[in-house]
Amino acid sequence: MAEPQPFMGLVTFGRRPHTRDVTGADVAVVGVPFDGGTSHRSGTRFGPRKIREMSLLLWGYNNPLGVAPFDALNVIDYGDVESVPVNIERTYANVEREVSAILDAGVTVLALGGDHSITLPLLRAHARRFGALAIVHFDSHPDTWDSEYSGQPYSHGTPFRRAIEEGLVDTGAYVQVGIRGPTSGLDDLEEARHLGARVITIDEAMAGGLPAVLQEIHARAAGKKVYVSLDIDAVDPAFAPGTGTPEVGGFTSYDMLQLVRGLRGLDLVGFDIVEVSPPYDHGDITAILASNLAFEFLSLRALKKGER
Amino acid sequence: MAEPQPFMGLVTFGRRPHTRDVTGADVAVVGVPFDGGTSHRSGTRFGPRKIREMSLLLWGYNNPLGVAPFDALNVIDYGDVESVPVNIERTYANVEREVSAILDAGVTVLALGGDHSITLPLLRAHARRFGALAIVHFDSHPDTWDSEYSGQPYSHGTPFRRAIEEGLVDTGAYVQVGIRGPTSGLDDLEEARHLGARVITIDEAMAGGLPAVLQEIHARAAGKKVYVSLDIDAVDPAFAPGTGTPEVGGFTSYDMLQLVRGLRGLDLVGFDIVEVSPPYDHGDITAILASNLAFEFLSLRALKKGER
Amino acid sequence: MAEPQPFMGLVTFGRRPHTRDVTGADVAVVGVPFDGGTSHRSGTRFGPRKIREMSLLLWGYNNPLGVAPFDALNVIDYGDVESVPVNIERTYANVEREVSAILDAGVTVLALGGDHSITLPLLRAHARRFGALAIVHFDSHPDTWDSEYSGQPYSHGTPFRRAIEEGLVDTGAYVQVGIRGPTSGLDDLEEARHLGARVITIDEAMAGGLPAVLQEIHARAAGKKVYVSLDIDAVDPAFAPGTGTPEVGGFTSYDMLQLVRGLRGLDLVGFDIVEVSPPYDHGDITAILASNLAFEFLSLRALKKGER
Amino acid sequence: MAEPQPFMGLVTFGRRPHTRDVTGADVAVVGVPFDGGTSHRSGTRFGPRKIREMSLLLWGYNNPLGVAPFDALNVIDYGDVESVPVNIERTYANVEREVSAILDAGVTVLALGGDHSITLPLLRAHARRFGALAIVHFDSHPDTWDSEYSGQPYSHGTPFRRAIEEGLVDTGAYVQVGIRGPTSGLDDLEEARHLGARVITIDEAMAGGLPAVLQEIHARAAGKKVYVSLDIDAVDPAFAPGTGTPEVGGFTSYDMLQLVRGLRGLDLVGFDIVEVSPPYDHGDITAILASNLAFEFLSLRALKKGER
Amino acid sequence: MAEPQPFMGLVTFGRRPHTRDVTGADVAVVGVPFDGGTSHRSGTRFGPRKIREMSLLLWGYNNPLGVAPFDALNVIDYGDVESVPVNIERTYANVEREVSAILDAGVTVLALGGDHSITLPLLRAHARRFGALAIVHFDSHPDTWDSEYSGQPYSHGTPFRRAIEEGLVDTGAYVQVGIRGPTSGLDDLEEARHLGARVITIDEAMAGGLPAVLQEIHARAAGKKVYVSLDIDAVDPAFAPGTGTPEVGGFTSYDMLQLVRGLRGLDLVGFDIVEVSPPYDHGDITAILASNLAFEFLSLRALKKGER
Amino acid sequence: MAEPQPFMGLVTFGRRPHTRDVTGADVAVVGVPFDGGTSHRSGTRFGPRKIREMSLLLWGYNNPLGVAPFDALNVIDYGDVESVPVNIERTYANVEREVSAILDAGVTVLALGGDHSITLPLLRAHARRFGALAIVHFDSHPDTWDSEYSGQPYSHGTPFRRAIEEGLVDTGAYVQVGIRGPTSGLDDLEEARHLGARVITIDEAMAGGLPAVLQEIHARAAGKKVYVSLDIDAVDPAFAPGTGTPEVGGFTSYDMLQLVRGLRGLDLVGFDIVEVSPPYDHGDITAILASNLAFEFLSLRALKKGER
Repeated sequence: MAEPQPFMGLVTFGRRPHTRDVTGADVAVVGVPFDGGTSHRSGTRFGPRKIREMSLLLWGYNNPLGVAPFDALNVIDYGDVESVPVNIERTYANVEREVSAILDAGVTVLALGGDHSITLPLLRAHARRFGALAIVHFDSHPDTWDSEYSGQPYSHGTPFRRAIEEGLVDTGAYVQVGIRGPTSGLDDLEEARHLGARVITIDEAMAGGLPAVLQEIHARAAGKKVYVSLDIDAVDPAFAPGTGTPEVGGFTSYDMLQLVRGLRGLDLVGFDIVEVSPPYDHGDITAILASNLAFEFLSLRALKKGER
Repeated sequence: MAEPQPFMGLVTFGRRPHTRDVTGADVAVVGVPFDGGTSHRSGTRFGPRKIREMSLLLWGYNNPLGVAPFDALNVIDYGDVESVPVNIERTYANVEREVSAILDAGVTVLALGGDHSITLPLLRAHARRFGALAIVHFDSHPDTWDSEYSGQPYSHGTPFRRAIEEGLVDTGAYVQVGIRGPTSGLDDLEEARHLGARVITIDEAMAGGLPAVLQEIHARAAGKKVYVSLDIDAVDPAFAPGTGTPEVGGFTSYDMLQLVRGLRGLDLVGFDIVEVSPPYDHGDITAILASNLAFEFLSLRALKKGER
Repeated sequence: MAEPQPFMGLVTFGRRPHTRDVTGADVAVVGVPFDGGTSHRSGTRFGPRKIREMSLLLWGYNNPLGVAPFDALNVIDYGDVESVPVNIERTYANVEREVSAILDAGVTVLALGGDHSITLPLLRAHARRFGALAIVHFDSHPDTWDSEYSGQPYSHGTPFRRAIEEGLVDTGAYVQVGIRGPTSGLDDLEEARHLGARVITIDEAMAGGLPAVLQEIHARAAGKKVYVSLDIDAVDPAFAPGTGTPEVGGFTSYDMLQLVRGLRGLDLVGFDIVEVSPPYDHGDITAILASNLAFEFLSLRALKKGER
Repeated sequence: MAEPQPFMGLVTFGRRPHTRDVTGADVAVVGVPFDGGTSHRSGTRFGPRKIREMSLLLWGYNNPLGVAPFDALNVIDYGDVESVPVNIERTYANVEREVSAILDAGVTVLALGGDHSITLPLLRAHARRFGALAIVHFDSHPDTWDSEYSGQPYSHGTPFRRAIEEGLVDTGAYVQVGIRGPTSGLDDLEEARHLGARVITIDEAMAGGLPAVLQEIHARAAGKKVYVSLDIDAVDPAFAPGTGTPEVGGFTSYDMLQLVRGLRGLDLVGFDIVEVSPPYDHGDITAILASNLAFEFLSLRALKKGER
Repeated sequence: MAEPQPFMGLVTFGRRPHTRDVTGADVAVVGVPFDGGTSHRSGTRFGPRKIREMSLLLWGYNNPLGVAPFDALNVIDYGDVESVPVNIERTYANVEREVSAILDAGVTVLALGGDHSITLPLLRAHARRFGALAIVHFDSHPDTWDSEYSGQPYSHGTPFRRAIEEGLVDTGAYVQVGIRGPTSGLDDLEEARHLGARVITIDEAMAGGLPAVLQEIHARAAGKKVYVSLDIDAVDPAFAPGTGTPEVGGFTSYDMLQLVRGLRGLDLVGFDIVEVSPPYDHGDITAILASNLAFEFLSLRALKKGER
Repeated sequence: MAEPQPFMGLVTFGRRPHTRDVTGADVAVVGVPFDGGTSHRSGTRFGPRKIREMSLLLWGYNNPLGVAPFDALNVIDYGDVESVPVNIERTYANVEREVSAILDAGVTVLALGGDHSITLPLLRAHARRFGALAIVHFDSHPDTWDSEYSGQPYSHGTPFRRAIEEGLVDTGAYVQVGIRGPTSGLDDLEEARHLGARVITIDEAMAGGLPAVLQEIHARAAGKKVYVSLDIDAVDPAFAPGTGTPEVGGFTSYDMLQLVRGLRGLDLVGFDIVEVSPPYDHGDITAILASNLAFEFLSLRALKKGER
């Protein structure tokens, strides 16, 4: 039987084997179906499942990067970490524990959210193994807010604030890209900068061009252990409507692909793609974009393996 | 200016005044936009807002019951109780505190969910004022599960179990209506019965007819303080697709209206309508049904006022 | 080439020829794409087009009635009468003028709305030819309101009031079927009755059964010239979500088909199906129902022809 | 870890193991994602995948039948048979070959379509093992047409005609239930009857009641090897909008569940559920219904096993 | 209690107070839910309500402009002007009367449509107070047609033609931006130019760049009283699908934000945003864009206040 | 009566006459509603019908090209070629036969798909009349695969491979524009090049700019008979979500319009627009784009006629 067409067969990421035994794997695709941390539209709990389904459309060879990541790497689909919608701390513990175990086996994690709150336990696990991390953070929102909403320190607006407070971030090498839209106050972006973030707003990116953005990222992150966190709302809602807190005036899908591919050469140790909310998507275009961005991450990881 | 048409104007429930000052009110419509407790599809956080919007289609006079509840009663729209998606305990505390205050002012509460987990703090507040409650519980699921999912005692599957454990329920007068679908195990319905519930399955209701169901309810609840909790998934998903855990083979909308109207004569002290999830609705038909059921509750409340 | 499958080919009602030359026709299908008269959701302007498209699924032979209307009758698709959204009077004039001309040619009109306001000029044209009409009016709303909304005498809530005032209706033979839902006030149904309507509410229909409803209709309309006006919201929104002012608790599609077929034997001179609003439909189920109801009307017309 | 909630984890039918090794299994769930044979709306190629996803909502214990089929039976998810959209003969060959092999291993097949054309190779495989089959066929269309559309003998309108011609059917024990809607001509139902089918139209079922329908089925099929083919369009489009050729005026979901449960006691040897088309569904209610009907089939199979 | 999250609470624009008492206000947000004037898809009657709902996502501080408009200005939500779908003249009279009264109180109006026909009475009211207006008109269509459609002088295709005829426009300072798509004839754009409009087609804007467009606008409008009318279909349907007559090949959302922000420094006296049609939107992205554009207008107004 | 508004009247392409008599026509619009050849989402069988419906929004005059194609040309709507979903060879035969007959009458064909497999018989018919063709092929996929999927030589991934093998293509003048996304292997693009295609990837187009792309096209195709095949998935799914195998990172609608207009001056002898799948569209934006691109083709054809 030839390679099955995308509409056929059971679903795992890229038709990779589903197993919790990570031995010998290069990359484990890990879902975190948690949508409790969002401030507006829920639904990202269905993100991992839908991104997996759309990954069946990834035919395998990355032409711009010249690599076939599913051939070059041993990729497995680990399945989902158990998430507890009403208990973010417990969810965090589950993520940190399971991802740490995967990383300890020498396996790279590609995490699929879920809302952006899940990046905090991912950073905890990665920092535990790699030390304070350089971070490339694509987003429309800074997510470095301090709002203890109703006494809750954790939400999808605070992961990077908490991560910095916990010492997980190499703040000289933390770059936010695509920031835009109204913020709560005058100080939001200023605070992000005080915390050490290099905030590249959408206006700066549009005016200076993407190559300048990439140059800035490389200048700060080169030679460091780099974690990439990609909030799909960095992309304009025309290209990514299926998300919880859309911000207009963002990147195109082509821009986003260029930005991810442009990370080539960095020492990438971890990735996440978050905030894909299938109930608000149409024609699955957001999930298709997310699956392609995951494919680019895998391709970068494959190139890195090849370079060794 | 004549009465505005439904597509015009700002939205409150039935165009009633929005105020947190409940003095002199007969009924306060209270939203609880919490969707953290659901086991499958989220989105009920948008339930109160959408039910309010659809309530603008309620032209005012209830012909079968012969009453104009917005004329007969002083109804206010209290707005929403603050919900904290990731912290069900805090949400519970908010609901219990605010609803208790409204009840203490002698005002009846009509609560709009949100998922079914919110019924527990509503029952706490009502039992504090009225003592252990007779309960008429329309649902496809018993919601008397004991599953401490991931160590969480509270979810949309457990409110009545917890309420019984807390002594909030007059278990001789607790009737579940519409139960159906697969359950976790052999014992689920048996356990509900052991806890004191009279479980009227959909099969019993269909075979015996709705008048028999109503007779059974009246036989148990007459003369007692009755709280009505209506999970919209008691209705078949053809009539109420906008919900989180649909169960096929349920009541029609006409059935549901008959069942609610048939509560006439009981001493109704509290109401909730839960599990309306607008992202999964179409043509707003679920929210329209919910707003009509809320209207029936108000009508019953108006009749009770008239009888005094 | 065999009969084309429904997904192929250009669209006319039932693949009948499109022509404005009505000579020799038995029935002209006439669209009236007007949605200005609605009090809530617009969109019925797309009703005629979508009903036509769904009519391609009508395979031709009516088994319960034992007739193949497209064989028995010369049916043409007349196309649409020009409607002017902001000018209901001008639209009315267009409908009355064009429909009168068709009727004068001895051709029966099957009109597809559009909102219910269009029934008034249809009744004017029919009464001009046939005299005051017996009317079978399926609806959830009485549409005999007197509300001069903002000084506008015409809307989708007033056509039958105006028709009675204009003497177009044989009020002893005017039957409303399916009425339900909140009305503006205590007097709405009472007024309808004072105007001469026999108001069969949904509760009466459900309690007495459909045969009793049909008996009542025949008792009043037998031997008279009968016009049938079918507002799709007579059907429950589960079966007909694509409409502007849905009322829950209505007929099933099976009920509706039985009610229409049960008109067999009456001297039917005109038909309309109104209030199908495709933007609010899903899976086109409302338009499919409407096209089937149109098919039943044609079947009744074919039987009548056969009887002569 | 407790049983995962439905929104989590990878998808197989009922979370059963995915394997092509059928040894020791009682039932194999087999997808046939073929939508080439439909005369109107395509999309059933996504039926098996979506029914599997919705099967995660099946909590396990069937209360009306008193059985937990996933405990009582060794159920596996076989995955999909390769379908070739443009080549129905090749698809037929694949289905017949693979299903025959499963049956030869003594394993019962529960097939998920796909459009109704796939029932022909399923019947071929079953008849090869069990001989000419008694058939219970739920549908709105007779599917015994002879139309060689464009010279094509196979389509979703012809499987039972072909099966009878091929001698696969015990025509004295072939019952069609739910037939309705316009047919191509006067003779369609008559021909079905001449071919040996007992055609129970929706009108007969509604007038006589479901117990009479079931009695008729048992009278004909008792003691024989029975294959059940369930076209989801037997159900009204209000309950099952996600299908290719909806016919209004059908069964409710409650009716359909009763009809399937009522097959208890027959010697059921094969099942299929076909014509679920997710692109036209909303809120997944059609797929949820289909997954519940599959669960009923499994429950019947479990009871049969228990009886031995 | 902290600032409520967007999914909670009753809806007014930006959570500003709803009042018809404009005393002391800087800006009144005024809805005009009229969709009678459209030539294709209706539904803009729900525009004001949905834009208000999406405005809850506006967190308050405008980073590119450095202003917090809800702090700097006293903004109120006036609610909706009564619209009469079938009577555009009466609707016009209502708009003109109510908006004039607001303007006379020294309050700026930010109007939310509704279709583009509503701009004519808005211009009448503004010209009455400010004299002939400079106009910045973002749109894909010139809306300076003369078509008296069915004898109707008013529609969403004619407001600027009528405004010029009525002397409301300073035609030397009337700029149309974004014009594209097929027009009725050779003369459409030529006529617009003869009427005094500077027509900047999308091709000119794309070729010359947005700064050149803004330069042109400032050159013509500087020092004059400027009214800004923004038809959301100036933006490409990828970014704004929820509109009545989409034209492909338009601005991105980023472009549109830049164009509005670039109006800084002009003496802006009035604004409208029109043609948002929620029934055709998805994921609310069009309404989110419109609410952000409204926010930019408010920010410009706040800067102007600060400059005084 | 004035020109009817787009929501009114029966549908043909651009309201041109529907006839199979092509005598005297300049262009015949021909639908090919075939979706059997797709590897993922079906639904393009509804493409021709929906594109026709959206063509009613084309007001007639092409401003950038300065031509009114419906005035300059005698355009007819030929209707659809019969397609047989399960038999691609028979469909091919129908297309080739009917299109050849139209071409033989000296009429240009504008074909509306359907999936991309239909281009092969279109090329056969055109090559039969015009000889080996220069081809401008807009697409995200090369469609020059050799995959005999399940032994099927024909699918929507192979038409250009087969056409080259059959000698229908002037391979020195075959340009692919917009290619991107993962391919099956390292060799896919290389093979396309070996077959003679000039593969302009999206990266080359974005880096070099559209004028360079057009220059390249003209350099190769000038003076030759040129066939244009436009797969709507050349455009980014933000602008064209309604398609079967979306590839992110594509052209904007503005880009696509420029690319088509830029073909001016070539000797264009045939056109197709394929892969529009309405079930996956929203707000009809994909079909609107396709109808505009068809309009541009007609405009180019009109200019060519004028030049003679």
